[in-house]
Amino acid sequence: MKLPTSTEWVLHCATTLAQLEAGETASAAQLATYYDLPAPYLAKQLQALVRAGVLTATTGPRGGFRLARPAAEVTLLEVVEAVRGASQPYECREIRQQGAGALPPQDCRDTCILAVKMAEAHDAWRAALAGESLADVLAGIPATAPERTRTKLRAIRPGP
Amino acid sequence: MKLPTSTEWVLHCATTLAQLEAGETASAAQLATYYDLPAPYLAKQLQALVRAGVLTATTGPRGGFRLARPAAEVTLLEVVEAVRGASQPYECREIRQQGAGALPPQDCRDTCILAVKMAEAHDAWRAALAGESLADVLAGIPATAPERTRTKLRAIRPGP
Repeated sequence: MKLPTSTEWVLHCATTLAQLEAGETASAAQLATYYDLPAPYLAKQLQALVRAGVLTATTGPRGGFRLARPAAEVTLLEVVEAVRGASQPYECREIRQQGAGALPPQDCRDTCILAVKMAEAHDAWRAALAGESLADVLAGIPATAPERTRTKLRAIRPGP
Repeated sequence: MKLPTSTEWVLHCATTLAQLEAGETASAAQLATYYDLPAPYLAKQLQALVRAGVLTATTGPRGGFRLARPAAEVTLLEVVEAVRGASQPYECREIRQQGAGALPPQDCRDTCILAVKMAEAHDAWRAALAGESLADVLAGIPATAPERTRTKLRAIRPGP
């Protein structure tokens, strides 16, 4: 049960974009240089964030990525599920209905209680991440961090 | 982020063993036949439950597996972590310390706030499973189920 390696990338990139001035963007190449990540693969992950409605991509010479909504309205769950998907980690293959002990179909109309309890645990994980926004993350970093982030990011050539 | 397929196996086998009479056991071969699972691989998972302190293995002609403790004292977390381990699903590779935006080491003495929030979500998942015992599972199945389980299981030859 591992999250994709890119989970760390998108959480950091979304946090970085949350520190930009209004209207400012950053390109995939800039973010890749900022974090020393493979640009083409990072670009794919950022596009996944666009599809998930977390980021907006703008084109043109000053184009790039920015948050699609205010940082207080983007949850960590949205960022994480943009790259991992929203599937349950626990897979119920209905083994209760197979083998010598197989339950008859009429006893299996309800979801297996073990699958229910595993789903409840996954719901608890999702609720924890849904309760944390990018604004909450920014509230936990030093007050000087956003200005430093912007300065370091602007010093990187946006291209190609 | 998927749990091992065997997670379903061990959850069901532990629930089955929780329905036996005091002193009664079931062999890996019996449980494999009961659920139509590959016996050698299931046996390995049951040994993992023994190592985790969830099951006790007894030897001899009437030997087999039984719960190491009362069902009320065995949590779903113990069963699940016996086969998946207890590692975090989120891997922090400290990308905050690499690339053009790298934070200096003195700013990274504390755990990255993103890793903290991901760990809190994992803690919520663990707490949900730690709050459910095998007795809670049994409380959610029909009152006639344990007798049916024992009868079906006893009808299977214990060997080899």
